[in-house]
Amino acid sequence: MTQDATAERVLAAVRQRRDRVNDALDDDLPMAEPKRLYEATRYILEAGGKRLRPTAALLVGEALADVDADETIDSRSFPALDGEPFDLMRAAVSVEAIQSFTLIHDDIMDEDDLRRGEPAVHRAYDTGTAILAGDTLYAKAFELLSDTGAAPANTVEAVNRLASACTRICEGQSLDVEFENRDDVTPEEYLEMVELKTAVLYGASAAIPAVLMGADDETVAALYQYGVDSGRAFQIQDDVLDLTVPSEQLGKQRGSDLVEEKETLITLHARQQGVDVDGLVTAETPAAVTEAEIDAAVSTLEEAGSIDYAREMAEDLTERSKERLTVLPEGPARDLLADLADYLIARGY
Amino acid sequence: MTQDATAERVLAAVRQRRDRVNDALDDDLPMAEPKRLYEATRYILEAGGKRLRPTAALLVGEALADVDADETIDSRSFPALDGEPFDLMRAAVSVEAIQSFTLIHDDIMDEDDLRRGEPAVHRAYDTGTAILAGDTLYAKAFELLSDTGAAPANTVEAVNRLASACTRICEGQSLDVEFENRDDVTPEEYLEMVELKTAVLYGASAAIPAVLMGADDETVAALYQYGVDSGRAFQIQDDVLDLTVPSEQLGKQRGSDLVEEKETLITLHARQQGVDVDGLVTAETPAAVTEAEIDAAVSTLEEAGSIDYAREMAEDLTERSKERLTVLPEGPARDLLADLADYLIARGY
Repeated sequence: MTQDATAERVLAAVRQRRDRVNDALDDDLPMAEPKRLYEATRYILEAGGKRLRPTAALLVGEALADVDADETIDSRSFPALDGEPFDLMRAAVSVEAIQSFTLIHDDIMDEDDLRRGEPAVHRAYDTGTAILAGDTLYAKAFELLSDTGAAPANTVEAVNRLASACTRICEGQSLDVEFENRDDVTPEEYLEMVELKTAVLYGASAAIPAVLMGADDETVAALYQYGVDSGRAFQIQDDVLDLTVPSEQLGKQRGSDLVEEKETLITLHARQQGVDVDGLVTAETPAAVTEAEIDAAVSTLEEAGSIDYAREMAEDLTERSKERLTVLPEGPARDLLADLADYLIARGY
Repeated sequence: MTQDATAERVLAAVRQRRDRVNDALDDDLPMAEPKRLYEATRYILEAGGKRLRPTAALLVGEALADVDADETIDSRSFPALDGEPFDLMRAAVSVEAIQSFTLIHDDIMDEDDLRRGEPAVHRAYDTGTAILAGDTLYAKAFELLSDTGAAPANTVEAVNRLASACTRICEGQSLDVEFENRDDVTPEEYLEMVELKTAVLYGASAAIPAVLMGADDETVAALYQYGVDSGRAFQIQDDVLDLTVPSEQLGKQRGSDLVEEKETLITLHARQQGVDVDGLVTAETPAAVTEAEIDAAVSTLEEAGSIDYAREMAEDLTERSKERLTVLPEGPARDLLADLADYLIARGY
């Protein structure tokens, strides 16, 4: 299949599952009292999002259950490997609730005013409501994951994995904040931060359905690594795209990470190669920078091998993530998980 | 036994368990990397606290296991009702982790600069670190509770109950904030807020060990209600003590709730009786108020029956909470749970 056809196929599959996840969010995370609190939790959920993590969770379930492509299967009463039904969708919603909570709290910490083009929760409401909305989604995630009807021993392991992922996410966010005040961060440290902050939740999203269904340890470990590696690739590629995709396609000024002095794997690599990263761009806001200035900066980073370094790492991680999928039965869901990994690093093209 | 002897006995029992809980906190919530994040989690734990919730959890376990008072029992390898060992202490630590997370986040929201006489976490560190430290303790609570070695089905129910308690705590804190901006809060609404914000975690602390040990539903429900009712009594009595205990015993100005215009069950009741609560005290800071002014305000509130209303409610709730304990085998641990309920409303005398 051509690259375009693959992109079309994965986009259609992602959209179809995103719509189902959105319906499930209404059911499993409904409005309640106090109104202002639950409105704030709904606000972030309704502001959009591709639902990539719950989509990965649903696809893992479908692949393991070896569902026929034409078969309509109820993800609310989904067969575990022993045939007993459980609520796979609820597990998927649980992961999205954790993702949403981290976005809300991160935006407060990072003083980011916008999220998905809309005012962040702490701007649309207030900081106290945003902290509480995050805390509520956090609790709901564990309420939901402990109530899927899966076998108790599997549920206990799934809960432990989700909780452990949350701990790692906090550690990653803490490192991210710490790195802003340090000028000696190594690429290795940066990669560890990305793994903790972003990739472990992708890992958990892929592993948890397998745990709930009673898959063996080897399968669970491979799926976790699939998620972690594709999640790391996603984050690294984000930095590459910021420099290589035209502004009109990006939807924002190309090179704005450089202008805003955001440290990325690319700048950290370039520093190690002796590049004067701080002198690459003199403009102080994305609005003030010229395409010529960005072009020159990109050329310098290309000469230092820094962009290739990051791009190759993202591609290698994606390939490795796809290799992990051989633990799954062959079929359309497995193919879609591979496509999803490709899609994560192809966004913006 | 005299009241003093009872107080001595419960204090000795609380202190003995508090010390064991503190040792367990070092083991189950140890320092780790990133240092600043984990220092902030340790900071709140080391700032003190009576560990009343984990103490109640340990006592429930001891009562259900019908442990002989002289028997030394390892709470790390504690017998469930079927004789299988599990880590009761870890469950107790889990509850304390949740309590600590709520204190950290509440202090940010309420802009409270002090906690237990020390700078609050968001003052000793910064708001971002405090949000993350709370989020980390939140995650750790679920990591620990899902790793006690108790029977899986019991663990799933315990996790679900803890998560549900967290949701309620968020709802209660949201109501508390909302009530500050309303002048028509009824005593009933106030009591609901107190139940959600404070009492459900007491309830969970008493119920969760019973769930983990495999107690029947009736026992679990009674223990939950024991915790909820004694927790509600604790919070209501807090408001009474602020007006009735001499300043030197309180460790702060008597009547400071009135000066700071904090709405309590007492003021809400008085408003319903037609008392001009806002005119009771004219001083604007606790340092500026005179004992005579507080005496006059207390007299007015006494004449309206508002102090008796709150005191009687706290006493009734305490009596009701103790009646619930008849589901437990008679013995020293059950007696201590009753004493603990008395102690919760006797503090400060």
